Parts: sequence; structure tokens; C-alpha cells
Amino acid sequence: MSLTESVLNGDPLALARLLTQVEKDSPEGRRALDELFPHTGKAHLVGVTGAPGTGKSSLVNQIALQYRRQPEPKRVAVIAVDPSSPFTGGALLGDRVRMRDLSGDPGVFIRSMATRGSLGGLAQATASVAQVFDAAGFDVVLIETVGAGQAEVDIARLAHTTLVVEAPGFGDDIQAIKAGILEIADILVVNKSDLPSADSTERALRGMLDLAHPVARTFRHHGQVMSVPGGEPEKAPLWIPPILRAVATDGTGVEALAAAIGQHAQHLRQSGDWNRRERLRLEVELEALVTEALVGRFRTKVSEKRYNDVLEKVVARSLSPWEAVKVLLSGR
Amino acid sequence: MSLTESVLNGDPLALARLLTQVEKDSPEGRRALDELFPHTGKAHLVGVTGAPGTGKSSLVNQIALQYRRQPEPKRVAVIAVDPSSPFTGGALLGDRVRMRDLSGDPGVFIRSMATRGSLGGLAQATASVAQVFDAAGFDVVLIETVGAGQAEVDIARLAHTTLVVEAPGFGDDIQAIKAGILEIADILVVNKSDLPSADSTERALRGMLDLAHPVARTFRHHGQVMSVPGGEPEKAPLWIPPILRAVATDGTGVEALAAAIGQHAQHLRQSGDWNRRERLRLEVELEALVTEALVGRFRTKVSEKRYNDVLEKVVARSLSPWEAVKVLLSGR
Repeated sequence: MSLTESVLNGDPLALARLLTQVEKDSPEGRRALDELFPHTGKAHLVGVTGAPGTGKSSLVNQIALQYRRQPEPKRVAVIAVDPSSPFTGGALLGDRVRMRDLSGDPGVFIRSMATRGSLGGLAQATASVAQVFDAAGFDVVLIETVGAGQAEVDIARLAHTTLVVEAPGFGDDIQAIKAGILEIADILVVNKSDLPSADSTERALRGMLDLAHPVARTFRHHGQVMSVPGGEPEKAPLWIPPILRAVATDGTGVEALAAAIGQHAQHLRQSGDWNRRERLRLEVELEALVTEALVGRFRTKVSEKRYNDVLEKVVARSLSPWEAVKVLLSGR
Repeated sequence: MSLTESVLNGDPLALARLLTQVEKDSPEGRRALDELFPHTGKAHLVGVTGAPGTGKSSLVNQIALQYRRQPEPKRVAVIAVDPSSPFTGGALLGDRVRMRDLSGDPGVFIRSMATRGSLGGLAQATASVAQVFDAAGFDVVLIETVGAGQAEVDIARLAHTTLVVEAPGFGDDIQAIKAGILEIADILVVNKSDLPSADSTERALRGMLDLAHPVARTFRHHGQVMSVPGGEPEKAPLWIPPILRAVATDGTGVEALAAAIGQHAQHLRQSGDWNRRERLRLEVELEALVTEALVGRFRTKVSEKRYNDVLEKVVARSLSPWEAVKVLLSGR
């Protein structure tokens, strides 16, 4: 039986081996992705992002547990994208904490990924790993990213549903969620909501949401799918990102969170947004792969020596970078 | 007189106009960059990064003021790279605060840049804008980036010297600086150091630095250039990132900070690292421009209709993304 077939049959060891090949971007990994691709498109990809220290990892843990506890447990994969530095040991610690709660459950599969090489590379590798889980029959793929930079935004774009996690006490409440993160949030979570300043964090978030969603401001409605009053009746209802409170350390609010994730999936399917996001995701992926292939082909055509000679002239400032590109691409 | 000549002659209006062209990546902007390139390579590029809410903007402000107050004032350019969302108004507010302190001083030029399009695009545009300031004779270019994600790391790579700003009270002290940021820091700043928890923030930073720099751990030396004991005598001395305390709101510690930036520049020149960083910077830039040119050429060869037809097959899952790339590049 091929590795791909074993994965499709639910063999966890084959899955682990295949993920390694896919992460390495080996020829075997690529072939497997081609073979698995027709089996993808069923899983609900859920991105979880937010600044460091908000307790994202514990929350992801709790959400996974919640899915396992349901009357009809879902199979859950967790991809922890961790750009932590090698000497902080963040990834390792995170995995150990996870193991304690989730190990031994065959319905949960956890994969940590570290930053390697270019940013595009990481987003691409995450997309590929998510595809493998999707094909392997996992119902939900939780993609956890650290931070709130463009890297995380790019990875969140893979997801059907994006959770943005905040926590009280992050300096200036408004500043902390400034970096374009609100636009990508489908669900906002105030974690550590047992802390006294949680109210002010929630207020700040609500204020920003009101600005972003005028309908929400007017009608003070959050956390539900609503039709726009006076809007065309055939128009798809608007999703106003709900703000939910949670305490990941003891599981408070996690059931409601899992329910909101399910409601968002339902909304996406009803409104047609599910297919739109799916298409956008594949569009971005194709673009990245085309770029990669073009650069690869260029490298086989232009020798390293020639490239370095031109670079040398740029360093000496006798050729501008753009002039250098013209020289390199002209084949002269 | 051409726009480029006016810029080289120090005309601030010409500079502003040229920056707009460069940011737009217009043909005029590109031509100007080619013409200005031989005049670059003199400015000290200083990156300032850190999580939102650490008070980076105020600190950059204060550093600029400090350079202007010196007996021999330096000409200072500030590039504020702000990926804030349109409705938070972060960029606007930042500029207004800045205007109050620095406006009317012809030796200071401030340029805000917002996230547009791809990440690579922003890093590239920032590099180009820095080049214009360099050619226009600014001694120091302060490049301020919000956040601590890969985007900021990429932009920081442009700089000769990178400041990483921390502030007390960012949740778990260790978590907050986890995202690979310590590796890029040449100088660490604990801002808001009048807050009571500043000591513990500094301690956490020092602990992480000790792990990263075993020499510092053994000899408890930070903040100075030192020779590695027992190392080869001809070997370049090691730079141990100093940890400096500051209160940006009243300027405390900013003089020492400016001095440390100067010491780092001196260290870079003496050790040969200045030229190495310069080369690396141009190498990264050339690579990005080559990629851009390759993608541009591909777009002229493959019609949008053809591209979309192939994408359609991927969306229908009758073609895997990699198979689609092969089809598109084969010209079939």
C-alpha cells in the first residue's frame, strides 16, 4: 500500500511520516500532495491568532478537547505554527503542555511547525500540512499562529474561520490590536476574562468593532448573523464578529466558543462565502507556487558565478539593483 | 533641473514628490532610484521595532530630537512603517504627535508608509525610500516598524543597527519577546522604565541574552564591545547587545540610547560588519527584484483568461496546484 493510501485509510504513523515529507517539500511529499488533493475540501480550517502571552495555545487545547467531548466527537488536527527562537524552547514547552491533555486520543493529531527560511515558505508549508489533514479525514484543523504580524495574517488567510485572541493588560488596549488584525477576525475572544481589566479590554474591542461595522454600532448587535435592516432581501446576511469571553486555564466559555465556530461555518456555507474563501485560498496558493517555480527555473539558467558577478557590481555601486535585474534577465 | 538633481541639492519639496513616485513604484520613481543609487551607502540605517504599545513612536521621536540637539546636529529621516488598519487612525495620530515636536525643523523629514499589497512589496518600498533619504544626504534614517512578526524582521534586516523596544507589563515577560526578535536586536530598550515592573522585564531580557550570548553569561558583561577571552587575538570583538532603560515620554535615557547607537555604528565599521550587512541587504534586495521581474514577465506571457481557466480546474479539484503550475509554465 502506498503512503498516500495508508494516510487515506487513517494510519497515524503513515500520516506522521507523510507530514515530514510534506514539510521537507521532498519529491515524495509533492507527489503525495498531488494524489491527496482530490480528497481535500471537506475540513473546516480554523485559524487562531493573537499577540504572544494571550494564552492562545491553552485555548486551542481547550477547543480541541471540547470537540472530543461532544456527543458526536469531531476528529481534530492542530497545526501550531511557532516562529519562536531556538533557545527559548517555546515550541517544545507548548507541545509538552499539550501532550498532557490530549495525548493518547487517536482523534487528535498535533503538529508543530517552526519558521524556516522565507515567510512564504512557512505559509506554503502550513497550507500543505492542512491539506494533508483535510484529505486524511480530520473534521476540524486548528491553525495556531503566534503574534499579529503580516506572517500571521497570511497564514490566517488559509482559514475559513479566524479567531483573534486578546487578553487584558496588554498595555494600551487599542494599540494592542492595531495591526490590521480586526479585519481578519470572524470571532474575537477575550481570554483570561477572569482578570479585573477584562471589561475594559472587551469595551475597547467593542468600540473598534462598532467603527468597523456601522450596523453593529447602530443596533448594538454583536455575536449573531443578522440581516441588514433596509437592505435588499435577497442579500446575504451579515456576519458581525461576536466577542466571547473565555478562561482557557479552566475551560470557562470554551463550549460557547466551539458553538460560535460552528455557527460561523454554517453562515459561510449559507452565504456562499465558504466557496469564495476556498477559491481565494487556492488562488493565493497557485500564485505562490508559480513564483517558486519561476525562481527555480531562473536559478537553473543563470549560474551562481554570473549572479555573484552582477551582485558584486551592485555592492560596488557601479550598477543599480534594477539595472542588475535587467542584465540578469536579458541573458547577456 | 531634474527631480533627482533637486533632491541631491536638498530641496525638500522635490524630496517629498520623489518619495511619492518611489512609493508608487512609477517609471519616474524607478529611474530616479537608478540615478540616486551611486550616491547611497553613507547613511546609518537604524531599525526600531517591538510589540504594539511599547511606545516605539515616542522613542523614535525622542531619538530624532536628540540628534538635532547635538553640538553637530545630524540630519534625520524617519520612516514610520505602519500596518495599522484604516479605521483605527493609528498612522494619522502618530503623525500628529510627531508634528508637534519636530515640525518646522528642516533637518528632520518624516514619512509614514502603510501596508499595501504584499509583504514583500512593503519591505521593498521601505528599502527604496531609505535609499532616497540616504542619497539625499540624511545622516541617520530611523525605520520604525510596528509589531514583532516576520514582516518587521524583514524590514529590520534593512538596517545596520536594530533596536528592539520592550515595555513592562506585556503579559508573560518571556512570551512577549519570543518571536525570534532577540536574534535581530543590536540594542535592547526597556521603555516606560519608570513603571515598577520594569526591573522584572529587564531581568527577563537579561536572562534571555545570557542564553543567547554565553560570553555575556560567564562574565556578566552587557552593553559593550568586548573581546572573547581566550579567542584568537585577530578575531573581531563581539558585540553584546546592551539593555538600556528609557522613558520616552520625558526623554529619560535617550541620550545614552543615541550614544549606544553611535557605538554600534563604530563597532560595525571596525569589525567589517558594516560592509557585510550592506552586502547582505543588497543581496536580499536584488533577489526580491529578480522575483518581481520574473513574475512580471510571466504575466505578459500567460493571458489572464488562460490563467483563470487553469485556476478553475484547481478549484474544481480536477488539477492539483502543482500540476497547474506545470501546465502554466510549459506553455501548453
